[in-house]
Amino acid sequence: MIVILKNGATDEQIDHVIRRVEAIGLQSHLSRGTFRTIIGLIGDESLVNKESLSTLPGVAQVIPVLPPYKLASREAHPESSVIDVSGVKIGGGNLGMIAGPCSVEDRDRMMRIAESVCQSGANVFRGGAYKPRTSPYAFQGLGEEGLKILREVGDRFGMPVVTEVTDPRNVELVSQYADMLQVGARNMQNFVLLTEVGKSRRPVLLKRGMSATIADLLMSAEYILSEGNSNVVLCERGVKGFDPATRNLFDVAAVPVVQGLTHLPIIVDPSHATGRPDLIPPCALAGLAAGADGVHIEVHDCPEEAKSDGPQALLPEQYKQISHQMRLMADLLGKTISPLAKDAGGPTPPQPPTEALA
Amino acid sequence: MIVILKNGATDEQIDHVIRRVEAIGLQSHLSRGTFRTIIGLIGDESLVNKESLSTLPGVAQVIPVLPPYKLASREAHPESSVIDVSGVKIGGGNLGMIAGPCSVEDRDRMMRIAESVCQSGANVFRGGAYKPRTSPYAFQGLGEEGLKILREVGDRFGMPVVTEVTDPRNVELVSQYADMLQVGARNMQNFVLLTEVGKSRRPVLLKRGMSATIADLLMSAEYILSEGNSNVVLCERGVKGFDPATRNLFDVAAVPVVQGLTHLPIIVDPSHATGRPDLIPPCALAGLAAGADGVHIEVHDCPEEAKSDGPQALLPEQYKQISHQMRLMADLLGKTISPLAKDAGGPTPPQPPTEALA
Amino acid sequence: MIVILKNGATDEQIDHVIRRVEAIGLQSHLSRGTFRTIIGLIGDESLVNKESLSTLPGVAQVIPVLPPYKLASREAHPESSVIDVSGVKIGGGNLGMIAGPCSVEDRDRMMRIAESVCQSGANVFRGGAYKPRTSPYAFQGLGEEGLKILREVGDRFGMPVVTEVTDPRNVELVSQYADMLQVGARNMQNFVLLTEVGKSRRPVLLKRGMSATIADLLMSAEYILSEGNSNVVLCERGVKGFDPATRNLFDVAAVPVVQGLTHLPIIVDPSHATGRPDLIPPCALAGLAAGADGVHIEVHDCPEEAKSDGPQALLPEQYKQISHQMRLMADLLGKTISPLAKDAGGPTPPQPPTEALA
Amino acid sequence: MIVILKNGATDEQIDHVIRRVEAIGLQSHLSRGTFRTIIGLIGDESLVNKESLSTLPGVAQVIPVLPPYKLASREAHPESSVIDVSGVKIGGGNLGMIAGPCSVEDRDRMMRIAESVCQSGANVFRGGAYKPRTSPYAFQGLGEEGLKILREVGDRFGMPVVTEVTDPRNVELVSQYADMLQVGARNMQNFVLLTEVGKSRRPVLLKRGMSATIADLLMSAEYILSEGNSNVVLCERGVKGFDPATRNLFDVAAVPVVQGLTHLPIIVDPSHATGRPDLIPPCALAGLAAGADGVHIEVHDCPEEAKSDGPQALLPEQYKQISHQMRLMADLLGKTISPLAKDAGGPTPPQPPTEALA
Repeated sequence: MIVILKNGATDEQIDHVIRRVEAIGLQSHLSRGTFRTIIGLIGDESLVNKESLSTLPGVAQVIPVLPPYKLASREAHPESSVIDVSGVKIGGGNLGMIAGPCSVEDRDRMMRIAESVCQSGANVFRGGAYKPRTSPYAFQGLGEEGLKILREVGDRFGMPVVTEVTDPRNVELVSQYADMLQVGARNMQNFVLLTEVGKSRRPVLLKRGMSATIADLLMSAEYILSEGNSNVVLCERGVKGFDPATRNLFDVAAVPVVQGLTHLPIIVDPSHATGRPDLIPPCALAGLAAGADGVHIEVHDCPEEAKSDGPQALLPEQYKQISHQMRLMADLLGKTISPLAKDAGGPTPPQPPTEALA
Repeated sequence: MIVILKNGATDEQIDHVIRRVEAIGLQSHLSRGTFRTIIGLIGDESLVNKESLSTLPGVAQVIPVLPPYKLASREAHPESSVIDVSGVKIGGGNLGMIAGPCSVEDRDRMMRIAESVCQSGANVFRGGAYKPRTSPYAFQGLGEEGLKILREVGDRFGMPVVTEVTDPRNVELVSQYADMLQVGARNMQNFVLLTEVGKSRRPVLLKRGMSATIADLLMSAEYILSEGNSNVVLCERGVKGFDPATRNLFDVAAVPVVQGLTHLPIIVDPSHATGRPDLIPPCALAGLAAGADGVHIEVHDCPEEAKSDGPQALLPEQYKQISHQMRLMADLLGKTISPLAKDAGGPTPPQPPTEALA
Repeated sequence: MIVILKNGATDEQIDHVIRRVEAIGLQSHLSRGTFRTIIGLIGDESLVNKESLSTLPGVAQVIPVLPPYKLASREAHPESSVIDVSGVKIGGGNLGMIAGPCSVEDRDRMMRIAESVCQSGANVFRGGAYKPRTSPYAFQGLGEEGLKILREVGDRFGMPVVTEVTDPRNVELVSQYADMLQVGARNMQNFVLLTEVGKSRRPVLLKRGMSATIADLLMSAEYILSEGNSNVVLCERGVKGFDPATRNLFDVAAVPVVQGLTHLPIIVDPSHATGRPDLIPPCALAGLAAGADGVHIEVHDCPEEAKSDGPQALLPEQYKQISHQMRLMADLLGKTISPLAKDAGGPTPPQPPTEALA
Repeated sequence: MIVILKNGATDEQIDHVIRRVEAIGLQSHLSRGTFRTIIGLIGDESLVNKESLSTLPGVAQVIPVLPPYKLASREAHPESSVIDVSGVKIGGGNLGMIAGPCSVEDRDRMMRIAESVCQSGANVFRGGAYKPRTSPYAFQGLGEEGLKILREVGDRFGMPVVTEVTDPRNVELVSQYADMLQVGARNMQNFVLLTEVGKSRRPVLLKRGMSATIADLLMSAEYILSEGNSNVVLCERGVKGFDPATRNLFDVAAVPVVQGLTHLPIIVDPSHATGRPDLIPPCALAGLAAGADGVHIEVHDCPEEAKSDGPQALLPEQYKQISHQMRLMADLLGKTISPLAKDAGGPTPPQPPTEALA
């Protein structure tokens, strides 16, 4: 950590800073420049409260040298993590291909969509049972009923399923049905929820918040990791931008930036990033080309009947096409689309309480 | 609601849209222009799923004409609401002056700060017992112990207290101690939490999220109102901006914009909006001049010892000065700083369970 | 300047950096921390090319300690500058009240509007003769004919006039007619134009670009100052935001931030910042309350006939009201609305070539 | 165009709007809804001044139905344009591979870099002779001397050259040396400059401004087209974002959005978009995968000696690698990297005045 003093800081103020630093157990290294004095802190900077130091008289700026996340940092863990979602691998050259409708709707429709995306090559099925909607009057999801349908679909096709959890009180319930827990963009800094999913042993799909910096995203991952759950997959899904041409601004450069800072995999979600079906295929390919560890796409067989987010879903036929193109792109990039456990011999999916499926 | 069709939309596509609209029970009004055809929808547009309509073949754009919030809209409720926080009025010409430290810390310090801000003219005391921190390694608040201190401080000085609630499981507990529940910026779209505070009968201070549009903010208020709790005070506390000069970008124009759209009061929080103590006084005055219904300022008697957010707090002496200036500004604007209940004869503060204060 | 080295930087890399720094004539100060090595540069940091240093092997980050602008910095010039616009003072407690239509239109209308705003208390008249329009098909201004009308209006009412210059080839021509040259937001980084107005001796009104940081704004001011023209008034007029509720996002905190960094005055322009007439009065008052050195407001007597930007203009009657309120606010803040030269005995306005007014 | 009236608009106000519309020569189509009245305008909406209409009493909102650009719109010109830059084709499946240093520096270095990028497969050479720098104290380019070097380099390797023009007074001079004129991001709304390059017959590379919407970009292209120059190539080079992790925010989705709206080609510039050499390769590939018509990359053989923007340049060896990868990507996508004229038999490059090369 580096402390830059104000022009005209007094010796007394400098001494005060040094005493504070040394009281914490760090050493200080004073450097008087022509126009400014700076103090380098030597030792474990995580012991220092940057905010407190900033308020000391005479201090102009405090600049951390190390990232505030530790478990998530690549420095601490140089090798890329490979997350295992009931046998499907994400990270380290293995691509997660997540597809499915925004919301879990009726069982037959889910079966039809799942069959289609499975045949097209998706390896994780998605669907929301608890929907965070901006309007209290909008469809809020089927709840546990939706979880049951999702589990049944997953079992039928041997695909792991991912679904969003929005309430810390539901983490355990959702974990009984789902192979992977999603924390949505609007909950990326819901630290109570992060702590709960950190206590779960299910892998977590953590979506970047709309105004979250990459450092914020990694700090949120750190919450989960620090509770003992190291199975976190990050997801870039667009940040807030000023141009109404797209729903969000797809930050494709976040993929290599994140991969430089952390060992955790990162996938892209062009459905939410753009909000327009015609933009999903080019942005899916762009995400892979930038090095993403997977692609999350919403698919619905009748968008006009979708209970939520119909306009950003592809039709199954469109998914089939882009899926084929993504496979060719993966080949070019030397990446593998991770096979399903049933095809590769992997771990067993979660076994919900028997009465749940009765 | 207006549906704009694509250039070259076929008669069949137009008919399909009209049938869908009429199936919902609305009338349609077709208008064929030189370059585009548009369909006006006549009837209750809240029955229409805009997203579904957008996905119909031939549809270019769907434009709602009415705001999606109803209970919060000024159209539905033209008169400005006055929210009563244990006797202190906020809204309709009454200013809420909220002050106190970021976190509740030790009892003696809380008493000292509260005494000072009370004498300076603050009418609501704030302090966080549950702190949403970006780092899992940072101080997370004193929890219920903090609530007890806060209640004791409130009772001693006759000031209502506001504190943040971050966990839906804690809403009832926090309601036992606090006069007003704060929903923080990072939880503005934590719909589970909004629903819980909506079931509470405590007034709510709802802070605008960093990337929330004003419409998003009002939709979040609608969640609370739709659960039956109409005592919502909004708070502008800065949005995400591109200039590192300030922590956030203080959107002062949001004050009159919000007041045009809703009957709910809106206050400003220059501490979080700017993150710099030297900017708090000018931005506090700017907020009032723009018509804000109150000002929220963090105050700490020793920022370098503060357990969180020290750098954005004023010293008690600085608060006294800006408080005096705010009073003069209020006079110029014809606003009243609402007196405390003990001075004005108002309702009783919450009575926590006796064992809690034992 | 501080150079932070990468984790694992070799001694050879460190030596290379030190040799480069010392070759420029600065001293270096090495500090080896537990996790990172840093090098402090001692001497005149303006000699160092930060970009070059950043590219050296082993370098993680280069952090400048001093601002890159010198003439504009308050450090170099602690006293607030007072800019004299043909007798009207702006800065140092003197408020510039600029009002007038977006575009110069016909002579009679200009006379009527000028008479009205002059009576209401404006002390500078504005109007565009060269209009930077986003559409090539929109009204582009009356050109020199507009300048003549503007000069005539200024002379009639003894008000200095400000008008935008968009073309470096026109700076001299515009300087013959106008008391003050405006550089618009879209040209804030048109360095060719900045250089030309820097060579002029007319005061300059420099508007902040829509995506310009405050540091960018001050660097643009530095261009003008470095050419020898020290009469620069800055203007906050809204930055790009994500909320369509307002045309731009009025960054009122920029006022005190700028005043901390530079001696140059800064005014606010709530017309462009918000794009909505109902928001102009609250934002004008907010700007003054935040400490602005003046307010720029568009006024038109028939917005629906305005050739540009009608929707963001006040009617003369509305300007009269807000002008009265601004005067009361100025009194409260201890500021003076600078009188016109004819009322205070100031310098003579520019004398355009006689044939120009023939 | 659609006019939405305010709740409670009077019949008189509605009549006033209708009379205004009909006075312009359009028909109006009134539709009274349950909560709002709307008026559809039938006829050529380019005749209507949207701003004026917005100011009429009783009007809540005016919504254009057609884009404000005509010549640039794909609706007017469905087939993709192919721009010919002295024999190198950009657009319609032909990729422009632009490479070279930020600034033109000494002749020998330029020859070396050009030879290398030419061998790697670049088909247009770039270099700035007039540099728009944020600091007046930074290197401003070699001027005409730089143009001469650039022309010589272009002739030696048979590569067309592109260079930035910043001053309307220099458009003719630059056109004598360069095959293509670049308008930089900071000048995207310098309408005076756009008009001048529109009068030139050289192809133009128009970079998107940092806070420009895609509609703004197309309006700026329209300026050039409306002057008669239809050879415009657009360039996405990053917009302003809130995350300091990258210099700008690379808006890769802009590529397919732009291609849907206009027939003009669009390339990407990952150097400026990210400002970090390690991010250039993944973002270059992402741009191609999203459908870009070319890639612009800065290359320098000794970034630490570069006179500008060294940190965002690739080394020639790095360019060779990414160039190979881009070629494989182009093959996968079915695109062609347009060959040089000397290899394909195309038009002659510009012939500057003989004395210029003396």
